[in-house]
Amino acid sequence: MARNYSFHLMAKTNKNARPQSRLPRGLRDIEAAELRALNIMLDKIRSVYERYGFEPLETPVFEYTDALGKFLPDQDRPNEGVFSLQDEDEQWLSLRYDLTAPLARYVAQNFQTLTKPFRRYAVGRVWRNEKPGPGRFREFMQFDADTVGADSVAADAEMCMLAADTMEALLVETGDYVIKVNNRKVLDGVLGTIGLDGAENASTRLIVLRAIDKMDRLGVAGVRELLGSGRKDESGDFTAGAGLDDEQIKDVLAYVSAPIMTEGRTLTKRPPKKEIRNFIRRARDGDDPDLGEYWCHVSNTSTLERLREIVSGSELGLQGLEELEQLVQLTANGGYGCGQILIDSSVVRGLDYYTGPVFEADLTFEVKDEKGRPVRFGSVGGGGRYDDLVARFTGQKVPATGFSIGVSRLQAALAALGRSDAAAVGPVIVTIMEKERIADYQKIVQLLRTNGICAELYLGNPKKFGKQLEYADKRGSPCVVIQGPDEREQGEVTLKDLIEGAKAAAAIKDNKEWKETRPAQISVKESDLVDEVRKILARHGR
Amino acid sequence: MARNYSFHLMAKTNKNARPQSRLPRGLRDIEAAELRALNIMLDKIRSVYERYGFEPLETPVFEYTDALGKFLPDQDRPNEGVFSLQDEDEQWLSLRYDLTAPLARYVAQNFQTLTKPFRRYAVGRVWRNEKPGPGRFREFMQFDADTVGADSVAADAEMCMLAADTMEALLVETGDYVIKVNNRKVLDGVLGTIGLDGAENASTRLIVLRAIDKMDRLGVAGVRELLGSGRKDESGDFTAGAGLDDEQIKDVLAYVSAPIMTEGRTLTKRPPKKEIRNFIRRARDGDDPDLGEYWCHVSNTSTLERLREIVSGSELGLQGLEELEQLVQLTANGGYGCGQILIDSSVVRGLDYYTGPVFEADLTFEVKDEKGRPVRFGSVGGGGRYDDLVARFTGQKVPATGFSIGVSRLQAALAALGRSDAAAVGPVIVTIMEKERIADYQKIVQLLRTNGICAELYLGNPKKFGKQLEYADKRGSPCVVIQGPDEREQGEVTLKDLIEGAKAAAAIKDNKEWKETRPAQISVKESDLVDEVRKILARHGR
Repeated sequence: MARNYSFHLMAKTNKNARPQSRLPRGLRDIEAAELRALNIMLDKIRSVYERYGFEPLETPVFEYTDALGKFLPDQDRPNEGVFSLQDEDEQWLSLRYDLTAPLARYVAQNFQTLTKPFRRYAVGRVWRNEKPGPGRFREFMQFDADTVGADSVAADAEMCMLAADTMEALLVETGDYVIKVNNRKVLDGVLGTIGLDGAENASTRLIVLRAIDKMDRLGVAGVRELLGSGRKDESGDFTAGAGLDDEQIKDVLAYVSAPIMTEGRTLTKRPPKKEIRNFIRRARDGDDPDLGEYWCHVSNTSTLERLREIVSGSELGLQGLEELEQLVQLTANGGYGCGQILIDSSVVRGLDYYTGPVFEADLTFEVKDEKGRPVRFGSVGGGGRYDDLVARFTGQKVPATGFSIGVSRLQAALAALGRSDAAAVGPVIVTIMEKERIADYQKIVQLLRTNGICAELYLGNPKKFGKQLEYADKRGSPCVVIQGPDEREQGEVTLKDLIEGAKAAAAIKDNKEWKETRPAQISVKESDLVDEVRKILARHGR
Repeated sequence: MARNYSFHLMAKTNKNARPQSRLPRGLRDIEAAELRALNIMLDKIRSVYERYGFEPLETPVFEYTDALGKFLPDQDRPNEGVFSLQDEDEQWLSLRYDLTAPLARYVAQNFQTLTKPFRRYAVGRVWRNEKPGPGRFREFMQFDADTVGADSVAADAEMCMLAADTMEALLVETGDYVIKVNNRKVLDGVLGTIGLDGAENASTRLIVLRAIDKMDRLGVAGVRELLGSGRKDESGDFTAGAGLDDEQIKDVLAYVSAPIMTEGRTLTKRPPKKEIRNFIRRARDGDDPDLGEYWCHVSNTSTLERLREIVSGSELGLQGLEELEQLVQLTANGGYGCGQILIDSSVVRGLDYYTGPVFEADLTFEVKDEKGRPVRFGSVGGGGRYDDLVARFTGQKVPATGFSIGVSRLQAALAALGRSDAAAVGPVIVTIMEKERIADYQKIVQLLRTNGICAELYLGNPKKFGKQLEYADKRGSPCVVIQGPDEREQGEVTLKDLIEGAKAAAAIKDNKEWKETRPAQISVKESDLVDEVRKILARHGR
C-alpha cells in the first residue's frame, strides 16, 4: 500500500495556482439516495440474470484500442467516439464504450478453455466521447447478458424473455413496456430485393439502417427524407440521405410499417392494460396455452403474414422470417404474449454488427417533460445476434447473442414512474451534551453498532445543541440519543423520536406548548437503551 | 441507445489486420467464482460502513488532472503514476488513482450545501500507471470511508474501530489482524528536535517518511541505510538516502522502535490468541470495562510512556502524543484492546498529505509463498487525518479523516485464509432429447425460472447427449432435467441429481452396474417437477 506520490509534494510547493473544483463536461457525481436506489435496482436485475443461468464476468475499464474494435484513423489521438490514452510503449488504449467488445476479446483470448455455450453477465460503467447534453452523459452504466457459442434461436428468444422478466422484476407492469423484436436478415432481404445487396452497397445499407432507426424520433416523413436526398433539421443542419429512388423508398417504408395492429409506433389501438395483464396471467398459468384468438397473438401473426408477402422474393429474407416466427413461438410457449414481446420491423438497432434477431426494450408509458408535454421514455435496452464479433480476432465465426440494459436511463424512467425509492436509512445520532464525556458517548454508539443498529456520534462542534438536532434531521435520522448531567446522574438516557417529533411539531401551536409537552421524547434506563431504540426503529419500519 | 459506430464498418473493410485478443500489461479479467466471492465481501464491508452511518457516493472514474492533485510536469503527457488523456479542449484528464482525491474535489465543489460533518463511503476501481508485477496490478479496487468537517479525535478513533469491525465481519479473527495507529505530529515533533522542521527540509522529511515506511520490508538495518547515505538493493539498484548524521539516525530509530512489547514487528511476545479473544469479549460485554492489568492495555500504555520521553522537547510532538492517547482511550472505551488497536510508531503511511493520526490494517497471520516460505500479508488498508486536502481548492482548511481498504489485496488474503468461498450456484440444466421439441423444453425452463429456480436450456448442439451432461457438470449444475419420447408419453420427466450421482459414480465398479442401478436418477410426474427439483436443491443446501 505504500507508494510514492511525489506529485503531492509538487502540489504543495505551487500554492498560488489553486485548481478549480469542477467535473469535466458530461460527467456527474451520484449521491446517496440515487446510489441506494441504483444498488437495489442492480440487485434485482442481477437476480433475474442469475435465474437464467448467466455467470458474472468483470473486465478492465480500458483495453487496447484495436481490441475494442476501434481502428486508428490517421489522426494523432483516436478520440472519435471513445476516450483514448497511450501506454508507455506508445500503444493506444481506450476506455470501453460498451461491454460487448471486451467480451469478444475475452472469449477469443480464452476460447480453448471456456465451457461453451458461455453465458456471462456483466455490469459496469462505459464511456463515450460524444457531445453531452441534458440527460446525456459521457459516463453511464450498462447491464449485459450474452450467450456465446449457441446458434439456436432459443438463445435469442431467451434474451427477450430475460428482458421482459427484468422489466417486471423492476415493477414495470405489463403494458408499460414492450420488448420489440425484429430480424436483420428480413431487412437485408428487403434491401436485396431493391438491389442494395453486395459489399459495394455496405455504406448505403448503413445509412438506410440509421434512417430506419430514427423512425421513433422523426416519423415516416423524416425517414423518407433520410432514405432519399437527405434532411435538414430545425437548426438548419443537413444530414445526407441514402439516395434511394422513389420505388426503393416505397418498399423500405412498406417493410418498416408492416406491423398492422400498431398505429405509427404508439400502439394506441391495443386493448386496455388490464385485459393484457389478465391474458398474460392466464397464459402463464397454462389456462390458455395456445393463446387463443387474442389481439396480441393476432398482431404478431398478422405482421408475420404481411412480412412474408414483402420478402417473398428473397431467400435470406425468408430465412430471417422463419427465425422471427420461431422466436415468437418460443416466447409464446414460455408464456409471453405480444403484449410483452412484439414484432416491430422498424427496430434495427444502430450497430452494424448485428447479424440476425435484434430486440429492444421500450417503455411505453408517458411522462411529462420539463415543459409539461407528454413524452415516452422509449428504449432502455436492446441487443441482438452478432455472429461475427469474435471472428474479428480468431477468423472463426462464433455465434453469439446478447441483451444490454441502459441502467442510468432505466433508473431515470423508474424514478419518473415512482418505482425507484430507496428506504431512507439515516443513522441514530448520539448527541454530545458534555464535551469532556465524549468517550462515554462513543461507548453508547459502539453499543448500538455491535447490536446491528446504524449509529454515529455527532462529530461536529458540539457547542450548539440545536446544530446537532439539525444535523440529525438532515441525515434522516430516526432518533437521537441525549444524555446530559441530569440523565447521567439517574443512569438514564433520553430518546427523541425525530419522525414522530416532526409530526407532533406540525400539530403544535406554539413554543410554550412544545416545551410543556416535549412530544416524542422518552427517558429510559441506560440498560434498556438498545431495546428502546429498536422499538422506535420498528415503529418506523426500519 | 442508437449511436453511430462508423468504426465497426472500418473494422470490416480491414480484414487482413486481425487484432490480437490480449489485455494491456497489469490488467486482468475477474471470473465468476472470484467475482461472487468479491461481491459477498463487498456486501459485508458495506454493511459495517453503513452501520457506522456512512453514506454512499460515486464519482466518475476520471477527472481533470489538476483537480486530482497531479500537476503537469514539463512533459507532453503527464503519465507519471497516473493514466492520463486529453479532452477535446486539450485539457488533461486522469483516471483516479485513489478515492480520496475525487472526494476532496466533491467536497470543495459542494461545500455550501453539504451537511457537515459529511460522512461518505465509496467503493470502486482505481488505476496506477506503475510497473506491474506478480500480484501487483494497474487496476484494483478500494473501499473507503471518510468523515469531512470533524476535527475531533473521536472521528479518527471511529476509523480504527471501523477497520477492526470490518476485519471481524470478514471473519478475520482477533489476533489474525491488528489495526496499527500512530500520529504524524509525534514523528514531526521528533524530526523537529533533530533540526528537520521548516519548509526547507520538506523533501528530506519525505525521504525519512518513506524510509520508515519500509521498516516492514527492510528491517532496522535497511532503514538505517536509507536514513543515512543510501542503500543498494540485491539487484544492485541504489536508492539515495536522507543524509542524516549518526545522532539524528539514532533518534529516529529510537522513535520507530518505541513500542516495547513488540519484538521487531512480528508481535511474537503477545499472549495466545484465545486469551486475547476472551479479553476482548469480556471488555465488550462490559465485565472488565477498565481493561484491568491486561497485556494489551499495558503495551499501549508503555509505548505512550516511552514516546513521551522521546518527544518531551517538542510541543507539536506532545500534542500528537495527546491525540494518540485520546484515540487509544476512546477505542478502549468502545471495547477495543490493543490486541485489536495497537500503537506502532513505525507506521507513517506513504502519503505526504497526512497531518495527524494515521492507521494501518495489518494481517498478522502467516501463509506460505510459492516457494513454501512463510510470509505475512501485512497491510490491507490504511488511512489517517488529512486536514489540507480540501484547502487545495478553497484555501480554507477543512478537517478530514478516512480509512481505505485495498479490496483486491484483502480478498487474496481471505482466500489464503480459506475465508472467501462463495457457494457454487450452477443452474438446473434442461437437456434436449428431441430437437424439434425445443419449445416444450423451453417451457420447462421458464416454469422453473418463474418459480425462482436458476435454470437454463442447453443451447449448444444437442446431438450428443453426453456433451450436454458434460456441460451441466462443468457449470456446477445440481441436477439436469431429461425428457425423451418414453417420458413424454407417460407425462413424466427424469431428474438426475449430479452431486449425488458423482458420489455414487465414485463407489460404482463398472459400466454394467451403472446401467442397472442408474444412481441418483428419478422419474417424476410433469406436474411434480418444480417440487421435486426443489427437493434436490434442498438436499444440497441451495
